[in-house]
Amino acid sequence: MHILHTHYHRRMASTEIEALVQQLARLPGLGPRSARRAVLHLMKKRESSFAPLLAALQTVSERLVTCGICGNVDTSDPCAICADPRRDPRSLCVVEEVSDLWALDKSRLFPGKYHVLGGRLSALEGVRPQDLSIDALVARVAAGGIDEVVLAMNATLEGQTTAHYLAERLEGYPVRLTQLAHGLPVGGELDYLDEGTLAQALRARRPVS
Amino acid sequence: MHILHTHYHRRMASTEIEALVQQLARLPGLGPRSARRAVLHLMKKRESSFAPLLAALQTVSERLVTCGICGNVDTSDPCAICADPRRDPRSLCVVEEVSDLWALDKSRLFPGKYHVLGGRLSALEGVRPQDLSIDALVARVAAGGIDEVVLAMNATLEGQTTAHYLAERLEGYPVRLTQLAHGLPVGGELDYLDEGTLAQALRARRPVS
Ligand SMILES: [Zn+2]
Ligand SMILES: [Zn+2]
Repeated sequence: MHILHTHYHRRMASTEIEALVQQLARLPGLGPRSARRAVLHLMKKRESSFAPLLAALQTVSERLVTCGICGNVDTSDPCAICADPRRDPRSLCVVEEVSDLWALDKSRLFPGKYHVLGGRLSALEGVRPQDLSIDALVARVAAGGIDEVVLAMNATLEGQTTAHYLAERLEGYPVRLTQLAHGLPVGGELDYLDEGTLAQALRARRPVS
Repeated sequence: MHILHTHYHRRMASTEIEALVQQLARLPGLGPRSARRAVLHLMKKRESSFAPLLAALQTVSERLVTCGICGNVDTSDPCAICADPRRDPRSLCVVEEVSDLWALDKSRLFPGKYHVLGGRLSALEGVRPQDLSIDALVARVAAGGIDEVVLAMNATLEGQTTAHYLAERLEGYPVRLTQLAHGLPVGGELDYLDEGTLAQALRARRPVS
């Protein structure tokens, strides 16, 4: 039995399907192999998986907005968190990224609202205070009604530099400044931590010295 | 520092975003956690990831068809494989599912064309010969021009029962019937195997006794 080794670029599926596999393979946690399996799954479950996924993506894609109050990304402005009357408006938790907000809020331990900076100060990457949503944060605090601001930056050098800078900017306002307890692994990114670690860090949060 | 434990159903994001996370979490290889990360990634990379992924899904969703010749699923009919003039039409590889076709063809070791049955015979699941694309296979063989039919069923009891049944149905036609060498792990599903195992099984394929 001979096997021909063909050396031209042989196509197994249409370029459209290959393009879809490539797009999916770029998502975090997926690779070419799992992307291929996902596409096969979608093609097999056209009604029960493909159609609802496509509809969900379309809806989110059409409605995605950045919240004008907190910088969260959601399908409404104000976002679901800012619009929730049962959240305590006196507590404000400042995070670097939307992913950090999700990581913290998933734990359901923080009863208040959030503020998303959109990054962290970084000399290396040339990120300056005016590149982040810091003026908006100061304005929210200056507007009053907030008792505590939790600086929930990542436990990285840049995160801590950012927290320090924010503490300076918020000096003089009648708010308690706190930060997450360090118990976080050094260099750790918030949104990779398990809920237990996050809960502990949040429970033991302490005033910014 | 007190933490309020709220017990109402608190929403972190809009129901649209939660729905998207749930749809993604149902894909093989993804779970709730990685689906959440994928959605965050898409929301962050709206232009470079979200838009192209959505476009790719839409295109494939609109154009997906089952190939009238071989039963493969592609965005054209005939599919890319059936339409490829550089593939050897004298070799036909019969597989249970489209995923098996992809698994085999990825290895680039088989130079011919395919036939997808759409399943395997199963007394337990009530899958009978008329539920599979078997008449179409016999018709392709009867039409002539095919020298070899590789029965590339899974190494499961049902796969082997199906191969046996196909061998009976194709008896009397002037084609060599072969099957993948067993070396495949018993109970193994083709599309979970690594290319090396598949290549070996294909190289050592033997006539159906
Ligand atoms: Zn908001
Ligand atoms: Zn085809």
